[in-house]
Amino acid sequence: MRYDIAIIGGGPAGYTAAERAAAGGLQTVLFEKKAIGGVCLNEGCIPAKTLLYSAKLWDNLKTASKYGISVPDAAAFDMEKIIGRKNKIVKKLTGGVKMTVSSYGAAIVEQEALIVGEENGLFRISAGGEMYEATYLLVCTGSDTVIPPIPGLAEVDYWTSREALESTVLPRSLAIIGGGVIGMEFASFFNSMGVRVSVVEMMPEILGAMDKETAGLLRTEYRKRGIDFYLDTKVTAVGKEGVTIGKDGKTSLVEADKVLVCVGRKASLGRVGLDKLNIELLRNGVKVDEHLQTSHPRVYACGDITGRSMLAHTAIRESEVAVNHILGVEDLMDYDCIPGVVYTNPEVAGVGKTEEELKAAGTGYHVQKLPMVYSGRFVAENEGVNGLCKLIMDDDDRIVGCHILGNPASEIIVIGVLPYSADIPWRNSRKVYSRILRPVKFSMKRSFPDVVH
Amino acid sequence: MRYDIAIIGGGPAGYTAAERAAAGGLQTVLFEKKAIGGVCLNEGCIPAKTLLYSAKLWDNLKTASKYGISVPDAAAFDMEKIIGRKNKIVKKLTGGVKMTVSSYGAAIVEQEALIVGEENGLFRISAGGEMYEATYLLVCTGSDTVIPPIPGLAEVDYWTSREALESTVLPRSLAIIGGGVIGMEFASFFNSMGVRVSVVEMMPEILGAMDKETAGLLRTEYRKRGIDFYLDTKVTAVGKEGVTIGKDGKTSLVEADKVLVCVGRKASLGRVGLDKLNIELLRNGVKVDEHLQTSHPRVYACGDITGRSMLAHTAIRESEVAVNHILGVEDLMDYDCIPGVVYTNPEVAGVGKTEEELKAAGTGYHVQKLPMVYSGRFVAENEGVNGLCKLIMDDDDRIVGCHILGNPASEIIVIGVLPYSADIPWRNSRKVYSRILRPVKFSMKRSFPDVVH
Repeated sequence: MRYDIAIIGGGPAGYTAAERAAAGGLQTVLFEKKAIGGVCLNEGCIPAKTLLYSAKLWDNLKTASKYGISVPDAAAFDMEKIIGRKNKIVKKLTGGVKMTVSSYGAAIVEQEALIVGEENGLFRISAGGEMYEATYLLVCTGSDTVIPPIPGLAEVDYWTSREALESTVLPRSLAIIGGGVIGMEFASFFNSMGVRVSVVEMMPEILGAMDKETAGLLRTEYRKRGIDFYLDTKVTAVGKEGVTIGKDGKTSLVEADKVLVCVGRKASLGRVGLDKLNIELLRNGVKVDEHLQTSHPRVYACGDITGRSMLAHTAIRESEVAVNHILGVEDLMDYDCIPGVVYTNPEVAGVGKTEEELKAAGTGYHVQKLPMVYSGRFVAENEGVNGLCKLIMDDDDRIVGCHILGNPASEIIVIGVLPYSADIPWRNSRKVYSRILRPVKFSMKRSFPDVVH
Repeated sequence: MRYDIAIIGGGPAGYTAAERAAAGGLQTVLFEKKAIGGVCLNEGCIPAKTLLYSAKLWDNLKTASKYGISVPDAAAFDMEKIIGRKNKIVKKLTGGVKMTVSSYGAAIVEQEALIVGEENGLFRISAGGEMYEATYLLVCTGSDTVIPPIPGLAEVDYWTSREALESTVLPRSLAIIGGGVIGMEFASFFNSMGVRVSVVEMMPEILGAMDKETAGLLRTEYRKRGIDFYLDTKVTAVGKEGVTIGKDGKTSLVEADKVLVCVGRKASLGRVGLDKLNIELLRNGVKVDEHLQTSHPRVYACGDITGRSMLAHTAIRESEVAVNHILGVEDLMDYDCIPGVVYTNPEVAGVGKTEEELKAAGTGYHVQKLPMVYSGRFVAENEGVNGLCKLIMDDDDRIVGCHILGNPASEIIVIGVLPYSADIPWRNSRKVYSRILRPVKFSMKRSFPDVVH
């Protein structure tokens, strides 16, 4: 069978590309070996957000008295039901994606695909015993969980994010190796559900490349709620009693019934037959340009396979740019305006530059810090809690970064994304403020008084 | 005492103007006869949002089992605590506003101000036995609740929004006269708290000028929850048993322990001495141009007094424009991009044109309707609930309206506001979609697939 474009991998990059390519008039085939929707829909974002919402409701019960509501101690949660609901939602959403992709006319082949080679300007792909040919190839094979080579780890029944999202039984205590975004979302969930959580992080602060100040405030909040943090600390061994950690040459034991590995993900370069195409690889992924084109002009790569951002919304945007390039529509990938959200409670979100990046680059900047309690609605909905909204401006007073701690940062960050659009001529903070921030009722109403002058 | 600018009225328009004028270097005096913060902070938006948040938490308890959480029947709310918390928040926020205004160097006079006249290019204002002079005058005296001349109303102990926000005792049943935004927020609150609510609306649909389709969906939802709606219906009399309503010549009684009047607000033109200035008035408010300048070049008016939008965020923006005009900074009021939010549960929000407006004007348009369940996060956080996001496009495919039903519409509507900024050259829906909507994680991730082509 011959197609205009073959897309390997049915995660956010792949299914979006299939929709857009088919909508653009290309004969399109999408290969998925396991489950349409990829990690995001099946064992990442969506399942995590579903569990985290139950945890948030549970958190709200615990603090309801602050809002005039009393909840008897007999209130309880049911992990079987919580996980069951999650499974139902995943099924519903993956079904929806499949239907959408098909409705655009793209063919879906639910088989593992293997690139066989290129002949006469056509890529040959084998899947489920059939041979497929295509003029363009888009590789969206995603990433795998990194399992660090820690002594003893292989001998215990550890969790990765996949198993942590499946278990209907809560451990009494949990040691999380890695305090990045994923590690902290799980730390938040299990802490809310009453598990004694420890987080071991190799770096001096949690949340990876995100703003250090808001990360530190989040850590302080979770410390108060009982999570133990071990920063600048390596796990040197894993055993039945927990994890052995090392810092400054000293080792100690962090007791835990269960170990959750959250040290990151790496591009899945190996299995699909990329070696048959002679395309250029980087150490961490497929090398692509700003059109997501690889070193082969008819091969594109999007999503985690590029090793770049490892976020579903990045993958979606990348696949749009790639398909547009194939269709001859002017479009460029811009990595400057991708927000990152941590669905802890409170939420953390950021977009653009961090102070740490700007310092490292030697770029001049200044910071405007706004307590979230400047917002009337925040005060109405967050009793006895504060938060922080940081705007980072360059020397021309243009906003180059926005970092927020406090609910609903995941929604408010949209406003922070705005100044990044290359098309907006009013990146100047005063104009952003008066044109966009002011009209937004309540959320930011009283949040930016000092930016204006 | 002589000032550059005298501002009468300390609501959102007045206090924002005082901050901006003082920050801009003007000698500024702000008069407030009652309570800094105006209706919004003292007896409108903020108190209502505080109560509505407790109601939302209470609603969440009722539906918690859908998310795997069981709450015993003994759960309860305490209206004394809920109202007490509201009072505390109002106090905190009004204190904050006062502090901010003062910190910019504006003088606050907590007295009723009366315009005495104009002499030698200076306005003379009397307040608390003192005389004040100012070169510019900004009138922000707001609005009053309309009390309709219904027979019997004056004889019963009815509520306006002010009393409804103060009462620690819930009536058994409540008849709300007027199903506009304010009426529906109260209907939502009292329905959540177990009061039997009836809403009597003169027009064929609730929510005033907002999109009729989402308004109808909201009404259907609250009908299911037990609210009785009487549309196209007038209240002909009020008595101890409730309200007498009339429709198509027939009358009947809607029984109610308490009556809440929510038929609207009207500009407070009377008390401040505007007649001394000979400025032009419209039937419903002070006539102003796009700089908020009245027919007298040194008199400006902002907020509800203009009778235009009656929203706090409009007032805030208007006062910025007015102060900018006085300071010689180029700025124009644009009423096209003001979002409206209804803090019911689910929330409703809209911005720009409605189908009803466009039909009445004979303007061509087309509509894109997107179920909220296209968003993965919406599904994760709204079990068994749907919602609607409507985009209205003109014949050039530019977005001219956005109307949303579903949580958190109040936050998502920000995205709908974007295309309205006159400065944005990419009002075209495809570009708005790919530049802004796509990067937003989850909220809208899967929400706009069909807008692209």
